[in-house]
Amino acid sequence: MIYTPYTNRLKNIIAESHNKAELNKGFKNFIGDLSEPNKEKKKLIQEQRDFTKSIHLSAQPLGNILNSEQLTNAKLGQHPDFVSIKGTDEILYHYIVSVFIDIQGSTNLHKKYDLEDIFRITNTIQSAAIHTCIALGGHIQRLQGDGVFAYFGGKTVDKNRAVELAMTACSMFTYFVKNDLKELFLEDGIEDINTRIGIDFGDDDDVQWANFGLMDVSELTTNSLHTSLASKMQAYASRNGIVVGQNIKDRLQVDESIFDFVRDSKGEIIKRYIFEIPDKNFRYTQFTFNWYKYLESLPTVRTGTDGKLYIVSVDQAEKERQERLKATTTLLATGNAFLSKTCFVNADNLGVHHQPHRFHYGK
Amino acid sequence: MIYTPYTNRLKNIIAESHNKAELNKGFKNFIGDLSEPNKEKKKLIQEQRDFTKSIHLSAQPLGNILNSEQLTNAKLGQHPDFVSIKGTDEILYHYIVSVFIDIQGSTNLHKKYDLEDIFRITNTIQSAAIHTCIALGGHIQRLQGDGVFAYFGGKTVDKNRAVELAMTACSMFTYFVKNDLKELFLEDGIEDINTRIGIDFGDDDDVQWANFGLMDVSELTTNSLHTSLASKMQAYASRNGIVVGQNIKDRLQVDESIFDFVRDSKGEIIKRYIFEIPDKNFRYTQFTFNWYKYLESLPTVRTGTDGKLYIVSVDQAEKERQERLKATTTLLATGNAFLSKTCFVNADNLGVHHQPHRFHYGK
Repeated sequence: MIYTPYTNRLKNIIAESHNKAELNKGFKNFIGDLSEPNKEKKKLIQEQRDFTKSIHLSAQPLGNILNSEQLTNAKLGQHPDFVSIKGTDEILYHYIVSVFIDIQGSTNLHKKYDLEDIFRITNTIQSAAIHTCIALGGHIQRLQGDGVFAYFGGKTVDKNRAVELAMTACSMFTYFVKNDLKELFLEDGIEDINTRIGIDFGDDDDVQWANFGLMDVSELTTNSLHTSLASKMQAYASRNGIVVGQNIKDRLQVDESIFDFVRDSKGEIIKRYIFEIPDKNFRYTQFTFNWYKYLESLPTVRTGTDGKLYIVSVDQAEKERQERLKATTTLLATGNAFLSKTCFVNADNLGVHHQPHRFHYGK
Repeated sequence: MIYTPYTNRLKNIIAESHNKAELNKGFKNFIGDLSEPNKEKKKLIQEQRDFTKSIHLSAQPLGNILNSEQLTNAKLGQHPDFVSIKGTDEILYHYIVSVFIDIQGSTNLHKKYDLEDIFRITNTIQSAAIHTCIALGGHIQRLQGDGVFAYFGGKTVDKNRAVELAMTACSMFTYFVKNDLKELFLEDGIEDINTRIGIDFGDDDDVQWANFGLMDVSELTTNSLHTSLASKMQAYASRNGIVVGQNIKDRLQVDESIFDFVRDSKGEIIKRYIFEIPDKNFRYTQFTFNWYKYLESLPTVRTGTDGKLYIVSVDQAEKERQERLKATTTLLATGNAFLSKTCFVNADNLGVHHQPHRFHYGK
């Protein structure tokens, strides 16, 4: 479980919050040193910031897929490929994947926790989101409350690869929120912590990089229909749902069945076209994305015996692939290999018996 | 009309866009110097930035209520009273008014204009929003697409005064969008450019200032139920509507009738309590704010003969007040003064005849 440090951290915060509540029953409003009422509060914040700093400097943050260098180089709103035009009159045209991640239901935290614990909780969740994006090559453009607006892609990244990385990051984070996080807070009576994500791809001609605002009240950002639509599509995502634009579907090389139209609880399609210009016969479709199915299909993801998903490193995945290949080769050498209906080579004699001259790719 | 420079600017951009479309009919895709296809585009952006720079350096931006010094000192996300803790582990507790302004319908601009014109249009509208907030003492915390998240108040500002300034800024900007802007775009077939605003006040104990995120991917912002609620209430605002929390209603010294519950098109109350903790018997009410009525009630606002609202400077308002006072004094001296039912001194003899020993305040 790559998110274990975050989950454990949240468990501790919630446990401490319970202890604090118990203590307060005895010593009402006692918060440590009474001469400096904010000293204890400050200590809690300090310790939270130490946690987020330490987690990415540790040996295996996010199961080795995030290294501390990636994080040290990351700067809010400063995509390294485009930062050169920040604060200038220059503009650039370059493709990008826009990703809007929103943590829903965090206002409910105010029902149960004090401001210091809310800071610690949301900071931990937001850090997990930030780390996930950065680990997969994303750049954090803007923090919006406890939400995150990130870009994926850049001058040296293949377009389809950028889409793949964005989808992987968002699927991983959603899995974390849906499985680990929700359970944790439900136990504490906080319902409805969930995430909603909107993603779209805008091509080189469709994305203008420019400075919005004026003077020192400005932001280098993208002016693009597809950035606007990513933000809009977020609102169509269900709980722990991801909604993407047609461009994402076209570029992600996966089974069609991973996408569906956005539907209401009765299964009726809602807002098939997130944007249309009838005059120009232009219609742009939005789709829900089955992130669980997508995660399962990734070569670096394994389903554990507990039914949960685990990430293995790229090295480990490659090692496993080579082992499978070796096993297949061995099987082929025995002459007892059969080709299944789904084109796997195995020893199941219901399949087509393997002919010695055939050539097979290892999967 | 204090927004005249912005309105004229938008008129020009739209007119130029039409000319461009006409030209393109003859010279398809001709965009000036073909050797540098982006040169013409860049010129348009440059010229837009010159416009925003010049408007606040001009003699009378926003009718003299904004001076260029205010703007030069303004920095995104850096409230001067709290910036000292930016990037540190420190926290502060201090009241603030949180304001979320969203420009709705701007995605529709993509139906009609190219990216350069969209940049120019949204930049002009966003500049008007930024200028309005800064002119009334607000601090821009974050630009969100073409929306703005601003704080009002600070260490040297009275709490009720901060609320008053926030309400004035938002009412003025909404007036601009509803009256000037909408008309302009409707003429060009773009429907539905409108604004939605959410505002709330959090008191000293309820607002924690701290650094969210981590390392260089961080933002100094407020951790407060009332910042979260301001953002949530924005979603309950109707077109060109402002929704505020109970704290705003309690602190703004205006007629009760300026507030109403949020209602649907049938007049039924929707989501009376934007937040509640039934266990603790805590319920927090949201209200729609009648910004037009509020603007009319301001001493610095006059209704013109065209039915439109005009802002006069504080000096001008004071001069007018003194003139009215002088006229009343003169009237009193004649012995023909009467006190009307609404406590105004005038020459209408339906009122109570003025007694020489009475003392009256000028209004």
